[in-house]
Formats: sequence, structure tokens, C-alpha cells
Amino acid sequence: MQIIEDSLDNLLKQVAIRTNKVANRAEVEKAVDDIIANVIENGDQALKDYEKKFDGIDLKDLRVSQQEIDDAYAQTDQKVIDALKLAKANITSFQQMEVEESFIDAKKKGVIRGEKIQPLAAVGLYVPGGTAAYPSSILMNVIPAKIAGVGRIVMVTPPQKDGLSKAVLAAAKIAGVDEIYTVGGAQAIAALAYGTETVPRVDKITGPGNVFVATAKKKVFGQVDIDMIAGPSEIGVIASSQSVPSQVAADLLSQAEHDKLARPMLITDDRQLADAVNKELARQVALLPRQEIAQAAMDNEGFIAVVDDIDDAFTLMNAVAPEHLEVQLPDAIEYLNQIKNAGSVFLGFSASEPLGDYLAGPNHILPTGGTARFFSPLGVQDFVKRTQFVSYTREALAKEKDAITTLARVEGLEAHARAIESRFEEK
Amino acid sequence: MQIIEDSLDNLLKQVAIRTNKVANRAEVEKAVDDIIANVIENGDQALKDYEKKFDGIDLKDLRVSQQEIDDAYAQTDQKVIDALKLAKANITSFQQMEVEESFIDAKKKGVIRGEKIQPLAAVGLYVPGGTAAYPSSILMNVIPAKIAGVGRIVMVTPPQKDGLSKAVLAAAKIAGVDEIYTVGGAQAIAALAYGTETVPRVDKITGPGNVFVATAKKKVFGQVDIDMIAGPSEIGVIASSQSVPSQVAADLLSQAEHDKLARPMLITDDRQLADAVNKELARQVALLPRQEIAQAAMDNEGFIAVVDDIDDAFTLMNAVAPEHLEVQLPDAIEYLNQIKNAGSVFLGFSASEPLGDYLAGPNHILPTGGTARFFSPLGVQDFVKRTQFVSYTREALAKEKDAITTLARVEGLEAHARAIESRFEEK
Repeated sequence: MQIIEDSLDNLLKQVAIRTNKVANRAEVEKAVDDIIANVIENGDQALKDYEKKFDGIDLKDLRVSQQEIDDAYAQTDQKVIDALKLAKANITSFQQMEVEESFIDAKKKGVIRGEKIQPLAAVGLYVPGGTAAYPSSILMNVIPAKIAGVGRIVMVTPPQKDGLSKAVLAAAKIAGVDEIYTVGGAQAIAALAYGTETVPRVDKITGPGNVFVATAKKKVFGQVDIDMIAGPSEIGVIASSQSVPSQVAADLLSQAEHDKLARPMLITDDRQLADAVNKELARQVALLPRQEIAQAAMDNEGFIAVVDDIDDAFTLMNAVAPEHLEVQLPDAIEYLNQIKNAGSVFLGFSASEPLGDYLAGPNHILPTGGTARFFSPLGVQDFVKRTQFVSYTREALAKEKDAITTLARVEGLEAHARAIESRFEEK
Repeated sequence: MQIIEDSLDNLLKQVAIRTNKVANRAEVEKAVDDIIANVIENGDQALKDYEKKFDGIDLKDLRVSQQEIDDAYAQTDQKVIDALKLAKANITSFQQMEVEESFIDAKKKGVIRGEKIQPLAAVGLYVPGGTAAYPSSILMNVIPAKIAGVGRIVMVTPPQKDGLSKAVLAAAKIAGVDEIYTVGGAQAIAALAYGTETVPRVDKITGPGNVFVATAKKKVFGQVDIDMIAGPSEIGVIASSQSVPSQVAADLLSQAEHDKLARPMLITDDRQLADAVNKELARQVALLPRQEIAQAAMDNEGFIAVVDDIDDAFTLMNAVAPEHLEVQLPDAIEYLNQIKNAGSVFLGFSASEPLGDYLAGPNHILPTGGTARFFSPLGVQDFVKRTQFVSYTREALAKEKDAITTLARVEGLEAHARAIESRFEEK
């Protein structure tokens, strides 16, 4: 990968340019608008028409039968089932720590105030087709929703000519998906947002997809809630002379193999390490089945930045706000307070990023493209809503009446003031 | 308002149609795209050009001076200052209960897992111009951000020919806004999302605005975070024969006066109450300065639904998912468990909705248009982000190594498996 050595200021400018890209895709927007309108109007028929048109598949039933799911589970390698179950246990024990509690406050005489936390009634999960259908992502989407108490979890995934992936169906069964429909693309998102005769309307849609899926999710935002708009994978590694070049390289490649636009990034205070990692990258990438993709990612988006010291490395990495951040340094946990912007952090020499993709328990659905500045990993919080409530006695209201009517009248909202005053008039 | 008496099923269908409107505004979208592109390219100059073009105002300085803010505060009626300070105290004591804690888990040998909660670095607040500039909304937006620990709070508001509202500037000072810029419309949103020479780039934008502002917020979502897309105000009242018609009517009018598209809604099991409230509405609306707006809201969007019993009233109201819900019933708090979808709930005869708009402490920035199904009131949670972290010893990783590599290889991600295995090879 290219090695850049420059002042921190100049490196920060380069990083800022990287995170500021704006996509403009008018044709996609138009196509997606048409698809959404058609699904609203024609429901199931529109879904079947699109599958015929785009994939050449004649769908009789949109819903996947329980028999098909059970068969897939039975045919899945026991090692895979065991691994999925271990992952489920770790994800569950982690995400349960995210559960928020309702509260009630009755400190003031005559006043009760509180906030009630409730699960969403129904959520939809989009699972892409082909090689991008990851069983692990099903666990990551569904488990926090289950912990939140969501009553109905609906999965949609494009039909495949040679049948749905057995591991995907097995993961859906293990995770606790309630129903699965074979519909993909923008039309699947429209179906979940508005409902059809067969596909239920949900309250929130999560899961990654291609540009049509991502655009449709953005379009239906407001009609339903959505998760983040996912971008290409990113890994930022902070390493020093004490890091192991072969391990740093292997971790960078683990994300580079995802996508030609993935961003493997190394920031180090040691030029020698930078060179050694580059040598390892060249050696290891040649051995990978997805060599072409990983090489393209390194060429397109990858970089190694050499900075003066480790403090500068954290400053620069916080400006990048990477999806995954590895701190490959001794006593890594001591740097936790220097990390401002990152989705998921891997501390120390043994916390290789794929540990988080599959098994450690933190979510792997994470903010990308610099959005770790303000977005968070998917979690239990994403599947609940809060409702505030307040109760005042007439006596408690009397004490604050004048303040309310004063503010209402400053804002020119006379009916607001009179509503309060109506409590103190003859009925 | 129109009174509808029908079966619950038919009422539910009518309600569902009401919440399912889709706006299509191609010209607005195009105009907003152009504005955003111009602000990215030309920065401050674009902002000044738009103010000249749209409002005929020649802006010398974009930033409002501290002197102007202090003067406005000094010139604001002491009663208003006191009311704003009482509101601030109540909002603060309520929203502090929303603070979430970071967690760390070290139960398993060699494994540390946790989640670190941090404030956003900077947030922007949009305050509309003219009569829609509400001091109370400034408190509601800024206080939760302050409690979250946001370092920089930036307010933008369109310049006014006769100067900014003094009460707005006073509220900004009381709430703790750090800096104020006189720029409005879609260009203000673009400036906050991308930054200009003068206006800083922020991490999240909140606050209501016209269709250009709302469209711009939707467009920059992903570049920054945004709050909900606000729609017209809504109030749903559940009342019975024991409710007071004049008070129910006054509360319905308090939201009807906001907007010709506001939605005052009453659901009751008592036809006599329905008629009595309608009589009161006719009497009271005639006395209001904003009579025309309130009357239009009642005619356009208002309704009184008469149902068989109070359980049906809650079922129907949950389908509406109103922004504000009043339970004007005896022992109102006992119905809390029947409320599934609502932004803010007012329990009992004295909890008139404007109490929540100004003073009780719960936020008044709430989900509208049926989005209380999945969105929550603005709160401290909206101004923080979560970062997950994990640390494994080599021994702990050894125990879960096979599960990770099994799942990686099922997903065809060889480099993921090798990254883990690299920890167990010779360096």
C-alpha cells in the first residue's frame, strides 16, 4: 500500500478528503421511486413481476416454508451449527448489557414523570443474495432485536436459482427469525415499509444491500426507521515497532478481501514496521482466493501513514473514524481514553478483527465512512422506542401555571395558555 | 369536528390511511441538491448570496456577536427569563434520568468486553425565523445535548429584517448555545453538514424547519446525523363521560392553533361527550387570535371517533401513534400499560398538553405522523455515540479459534480465518 509520511496537519487534510465523498445517483433514485410506487399500488404482484424481470424467477410462494428452513438446518454441518450457537451465546451475553430501563420520578409533590421503554412491534431484516449472504450477519441483526423484545422478526432475501443458502436458513432458525420471504432489491424494502398482502409492514428495516437497497432504505426513512446506510468495510490499525508485521498484514487483508472499495489503513510511528507490513501484505495477498479484490482495495483506498508518535496516530485515526480499529500495541487498554471515533475497537495483539465479526459478542454492524463520529454499532437500543409520560395534580399545576402561560404568550400561542387556564375556571 | 362512529375495524382502516401519506416533491429536491452543492463549493459566499437572493438581506457578519446576545437577554422581560429558567431546571432534572452508562465485562478469563459512551463533539440546531422561532424549542434541543456532554453547540437561524427575536437569543444564552449564525433554509443545513470558512461542520443537526430545511436534512443524513423529520403537530385525547368538555376542547385547540395541517383527535366511548366537546370547540375557537389556523386544522385533519369502550379507544389510538396523547380519564396512570405508540403522554385531568410543551421536563420534540411506532422523543441518547471494545488474551482466543475460522470459511472469507490463525503461527 502507499506509504505517506507528512506533517499531522497535511495528513489530517488528506483524511478529511477521504471521508467527504458525496454520491450523486439520479438514475438510481428515479428507478427506486418507481419501484416503491409500484409496490404500494400492486403489492405482491409487483414483487413477483420484479423477480421475473430482474432474476428470471417465477415465484409461486413468497414465503419460505418452515419445512424448507428445518431441512436446511438439518443439512448444515454440525461444526457450523455449533459455531453459530457459540456466537449466539456470546452476542447475547454482550448485548444484554445494553438493555435500558424505564424510569419513573415522583420526587416532587403531585408530580409523576417518567419514560417507558418498549420494543418495536415488528422489524424487517434484509439479507443480500449470493456470496454476500452472511449467516453471521443474521445473528448480529436478530439477536439485539430479540433481546429488546421485538414481537415479529421478518427476513427478506432475493430468491436464488439453486435455492437459498442452507447456512443462512440455519442461522435464521438459530437466531429466531419468525418468517422469511424470497424477495430482494428495492422492492423488498418497499414491501417491508408499506406492507403487501403477504409481506407485513414493519417498524424498522435493518441489513446491508446493494445501491438499490440502500437508496430504497433512505427513501422509506420516516415511513419506517432504518439502520445506518452501510458503506465499504474499513479497518484502521495503530501499530508500533513492537507489533508483529505478519499479524498486522493479515488483519488488514481480512477487511480488504470484502470489497474493492474496502479501506485497509495502518497508522504507525515506525517507518520500518510500515515497510515490513508492506512486504507481508505482498506475500500474503498472493495466497488468498479473493486476491484480486483485496489487492484492489489496497490500491484504491489503502494507505499506511507514518506519524511522529502514537499520540498523533490516535489524533489521525479519530479523524478517520474507522468502522474497526485495532490497537496493536502493548498495554492497549490504556489507550481507550484516546479513542473518540470508532465503531468497534480491538485491543492488543490477540484481538484480531474477525474475532469481532463472528464471536466476541459486540455487534459487527457498525458505522462506516466516517460516521462513527455520530453513529453507533447496532444494538438493543435500536429496537426499542421511548414514550415519556407526566401526571400533575391540579395543585402542582397551579404552582407552574404562570410560567407556562408566560412562555405560551411570548410564543404567540394563546390557545396553549388557555388550555392551562381552563383547569382553573368554572367548568 | 367531524364525528365518526363505526366499527373498530373500519375506524382502524381510516386511521391507517391517514398515516400513510407520501409526499413527492421533485422540484424541492432538485433545488435543495443545487443549494447543497453550491455551499460545498463556495462556502460563506454561497450563504451570503442566498440571503441576498431569498431575503434581500446583505449580511456582513454571519456570526451573532456576544454583545447582541447579552443585550437581548438584558432586554427580555424578567418574567420570561424566570419562566425559561424554571423550564430549564425541570427539563434538566428529567433528562438527566436518561443518561446511559458505559459498561465493561470481565467475567470470562482472558476476555474484556465493553461499550464506551461518549458525547458527540459538535451539534447544530436549526431555529426557524419569524413567529415559528420558539424559545422553548431551544431549551428542548440544547439541554439534552449539554447533559450528554456535547462540546460545541451551534445555532443557525435566518436573519430577520428587524433583528433576531430577543426571547430566542435569551433562551439560547440560558440553554448554553456556544455560537449563533444568521443563516437559514437549506443552505444553513448544508453549512452545518459540510462546514464553511465560518460555520463549523457538526456531527448532528436537530430542529424543525420548512420543507426546504426538512428536505436538506434528509439529504445530508449520513454525512451527519439528523433528528426526526418533523411533521404537523398532533394531539390525541382519550376521554369519557367523566371528562370535562371545556378542558378537552381547550387542549385540542392548543395543538390545532399550530398549523392548518395539525391533527386534533378525540377518541371517546361517549357520544354525548363528543357533542359537548364539539360545542365547546365552536365556542372557544372563535375567541382565539389564531382562529383561522385552528379552524382549518379541525376541518382538514381533526376528528372525533366514538368507540364502544375505552379498550377500543386505546387500540385505535395506538394505530394513530400520536405525537401527544392525553388520557383524560379518572385513575389515568392505570392505563399506562395500554399505551404502545405515543411520543409524550399526559395522564389525568390536570396534565394539559402545554404543560409538556414548556415546563414539565419531558422533551417536546417528538415523533409525528405515526412515527411514534418506532421513533422516540429527543433525548440525551441522541447526543451520544457508543463504541464497543474487546480484548482477548492469546489463550482466550485459542479457545474460540475454531468457531471463528469455521464461520469465516462458510462465508468464503479466507483472509478472515487466516488473520486469526496468524496468532498461532511462527512470527
